[in-house]
Amino acid sequence: MNYVNFDKTAAYKKLLDYAGKKKFDVASLLSADRVEKCQTPLAAGLTYSWAAKAADDGLLDLLAALAEEQELIAKYKAILDGEVMNTGEKRKVLHHLTRGQLGKAVLHENKDIGDFYRKELDRLATFADAVHSGKIRGSTGKAFTTAVQIGIGGSDLGPRAMYLALENWAEKEGKRKLRARFISNVDPDDASAVAAEVNLEETVFVLVSKSGTTQETLANELFVKDKLKKAGLDPSKHLVAVTSETSPLAHNPDYLDSFYIDDFIGGRYSSTSAVGGVILSLAFGPAVFREFLAGAHEADKAALCPDIRKNAPLLDALLGVWERNFLGFPYTAVLPYSQALSRFPAHLQQLDMESNGKRVSRNGEALNYASGPVVFGEPGTNGQHSFYQLLHQGTDPVPLQFVGFIESQKGDDVLVDGSVSQTKLAANLSAQILAFAKGKSDTDPNKNFPGGRSSSLIYGRRLTPASLGALLAHFENKIMFQGFVWNLNSFDQEGVQLGKVLAKKVLSGNSGDPALDAYSRLLGI
Amino acid sequence: MNYVNFDKTAAYKKLLDYAGKKKFDVASLLSADRVEKCQTPLAAGLTYSWAAKAADDGLLDLLAALAEEQELIAKYKAILDGEVMNTGEKRKVLHHLTRGQLGKAVLHENKDIGDFYRKELDRLATFADAVHSGKIRGSTGKAFTTAVQIGIGGSDLGPRAMYLALENWAEKEGKRKLRARFISNVDPDDASAVAAEVNLEETVFVLVSKSGTTQETLANELFVKDKLKKAGLDPSKHLVAVTSETSPLAHNPDYLDSFYIDDFIGGRYSSTSAVGGVILSLAFGPAVFREFLAGAHEADKAALCPDIRKNAPLLDALLGVWERNFLGFPYTAVLPYSQALSRFPAHLQQLDMESNGKRVSRNGEALNYASGPVVFGEPGTNGQHSFYQLLHQGTDPVPLQFVGFIESQKGDDVLVDGSVSQTKLAANLSAQILAFAKGKSDTDPNKNFPGGRSSSLIYGRRLTPASLGALLAHFENKIMFQGFVWNLNSFDQEGVQLGKVLAKKVLSGNSGDPALDAYSRLLGI
Repeated sequence: MNYVNFDKTAAYKKLLDYAGKKKFDVASLLSADRVEKCQTPLAAGLTYSWAAKAADDGLLDLLAALAEEQELIAKYKAILDGEVMNTGEKRKVLHHLTRGQLGKAVLHENKDIGDFYRKELDRLATFADAVHSGKIRGSTGKAFTTAVQIGIGGSDLGPRAMYLALENWAEKEGKRKLRARFISNVDPDDASAVAAEVNLEETVFVLVSKSGTTQETLANELFVKDKLKKAGLDPSKHLVAVTSETSPLAHNPDYLDSFYIDDFIGGRYSSTSAVGGVILSLAFGPAVFREFLAGAHEADKAALCPDIRKNAPLLDALLGVWERNFLGFPYTAVLPYSQALSRFPAHLQQLDMESNGKRVSRNGEALNYASGPVVFGEPGTNGQHSFYQLLHQGTDPVPLQFVGFIESQKGDDVLVDGSVSQTKLAANLSAQILAFAKGKSDTDPNKNFPGGRSSSLIYGRRLTPASLGALLAHFENKIMFQGFVWNLNSFDQEGVQLGKVLAKKVLSGNSGDPALDAYSRLLGI
Repeated sequence: MNYVNFDKTAAYKKLLDYAGKKKFDVASLLSADRVEKCQTPLAAGLTYSWAAKAADDGLLDLLAALAEEQELIAKYKAILDGEVMNTGEKRKVLHHLTRGQLGKAVLHENKDIGDFYRKELDRLATFADAVHSGKIRGSTGKAFTTAVQIGIGGSDLGPRAMYLALENWAEKEGKRKLRARFISNVDPDDASAVAAEVNLEETVFVLVSKSGTTQETLANELFVKDKLKKAGLDPSKHLVAVTSETSPLAHNPDYLDSFYIDDFIGGRYSSTSAVGGVILSLAFGPAVFREFLAGAHEADKAALCPDIRKNAPLLDALLGVWERNFLGFPYTAVLPYSQALSRFPAHLQQLDMESNGKRVSRNGEALNYASGPVVFGEPGTNGQHSFYQLLHQGTDPVPLQFVGFIESQKGDDVLVDGSVSQTKLAANLSAQILAFAKGKSDTDPNKNFPGGRSSSLIYGRRLTPASLGALLAHFENKIMFQGFVWNLNSFDQEGVQLGKVLAKKVLSGNSGDPALDAYSRLLGI
């Protein structure tokens, strides 16, 4: 395969040329016919609608040529087949394998990694079933009613967003087993508040750290163990670990059990591994977690299609590259019209910004073009009453990524002024897409809307475990394709290291930098 | 007073010239001496530290000249004195008056507005006391234990962020009276989940809508009334309203009581009015709410100082303008190292983006320069394990606004590896400031940190009601000063109207736009 910096491709030059001579106007482009036609099935009943994107067939043909030139599908297949695609850390990239096998059997040190993931999935399912049946109980013999995940970054954001996304669904479907809570921040107020809120006797803690050395997570583990001991409970009967087999947390009698991942699963890609699996299976049962994996697997499979018009994450990725590199937009807003997705934007923020917030290529050359954008968002309609003012009338346009569903999760609704709330929610979503695209001229300049602000929409019938899995995989795969276009390594995160190292120096009392010491003094250290 | 577009000022040209010839390097600028010196007291024990901002005395002198030329302090005084500064809507701007009188008595239709706000504050305090003493109870005679705010946008984000910011503090100080919950989204799953979680018999709902016509809030009111009736409860004994005196919710026997604001308090500036006052007084007692107001008032007073080096929000505003208009940064990250401030960035997102996300001047001319930036953020250290990768090593620098405290709120902590978690939190904060500013060169380009990424820090001993009030007012005043520099109206939000109008058309069955109808069909309408 060829690894070429984006600005060295023939497609780059053609796109640059196209951007120079072609000015799209979404307002005039958008029609009912286009809304019908510009749709790409995603997976698990979801559809990617790109009618309100500023794109014509000419642009799509150039983007298709780019996909071919940068060998996006071939590189994705290389990931599936277990090639070392996290080049900086010399690791395979195997999160797709946690939800199913799409490539060759992946061997590492004579071990079939797919088998390993499947075995861990079976083990955690057995564990969750034993908790639900009451076979596994707390140290005073009480059944567990609450599970608390202790983890940070990828061990927190994804699993937390997925839990919140399915809480109401599970309530409605009678699939709610344990309630879940999360401790992440090293701020002691975080752990203290959660510990005070739960009944420790009935709580199982899921300690998640791949390395087993994460500063925040270990501090919070000891915080919680201390509380358990003070309550007269045996911590080893209240903790399970999710970690790698080489970590200090592995095969450790201090835990009820340990479940394993490996270095081929990046933190931000770990929701479909044991990192998300234990807490989600405890909360909703292993069958629900398997439905979630099946939705993600279906989306992974659809992402193999070489036709960009039929491959939702590929098209989404390429349109994003167009907006970032040729229209110059430095950010993207993610706007789910679903309260259940309240923390999904925070997860996407990590997924995207940690994957593609890079300034060197996979070979270490400085990039001469912009890479990953800033990602932010809140659920609609809440955001409409907050930052949408800037989105509609700010000086700089922001690309918009909407998500919406036909049905609510609980179906518990009220009829007001002739419509139920779910219909109002959906009406606001379609209205916003049009308002952004078409704007409205007004003689009062303050009430004038320029329009021409483009958006995409992912929609489906209802947010379920399967559609949530597909939604998650869509964005993972979109970001992966963009990383390939930009010729960077989306799978490491060296940018988080320097701060960690300096913080340890401060704590050791020898920072080596007088300015750093001066800041530490301000903060009472 | 003079109202001049920014690019027409003499200061603009000088700053442009300065930006052209002066390249600051934070890495070489930053020293222990600078950390000691570049500090400006804010209020209520908070300090604004700008040592890691790329600014020298030459720049500060130019910014001071800008402040004078655009008459920033004089315009702030005009607000305090009750001039009509929300020009589009022809309204006064009086949120400062909710926390104390700094200007002349403000009269409107022969009414002293300051007296009106003070009277409402007294009334809501009496109401909260009566709830706490058990004089006011639910319809079955049970004391209230939970208060649920129903509101959206400014009636939700600010009060919710403030409640979360003080929950742990109040727990520790024995000031926790009622727990609070919030319903905002028109997504019926939001109201349904909250209604299912609370004991309706012991719950008082605080319905907040200035106009009394907010679609989401009215739908959620009826949702909740329906639940109360079905539970055999009398809704009029479980609801209070916060609204304007001319709204349908005013003087209405359907509520236990109603508390009033007026058109001079914008939603996003309403946390210190009855909009925040009722729920915060119910949750923590009126005395705590008054401490919060006192902190905000102290910050408002400090914001009158004409010396930019001694006026934290003024300096913060001007440095932000420098970064936005002359360094070209389109966003700002807000990074509080405090779990209690978990939703403070979401509030700031509204405050800033809804206030200054405008493309026309207060006189309606199109702006030839960038106005308000995109604001996003999450608490540290969580963010470090998420989007900081892009902040450290992305292709585009992002200005950073840190917040931190010496002490935690609860003081419930654990000693691990020689330090407590609060010290680890603070060490990470000081380490990050240095890492961003100075970077680190490495022969491995992947591990190279460019540095030169500037930040500011607001710090204090502990997050208390008073320091929270000061923090809130700091950002309100910063944003106000920036609006004056950009010569726009920070106090209206016409950009939210078009979507509302179109959504109503969709719901009426006559959108008038085939493309909109096509989108509505996708979404099941």
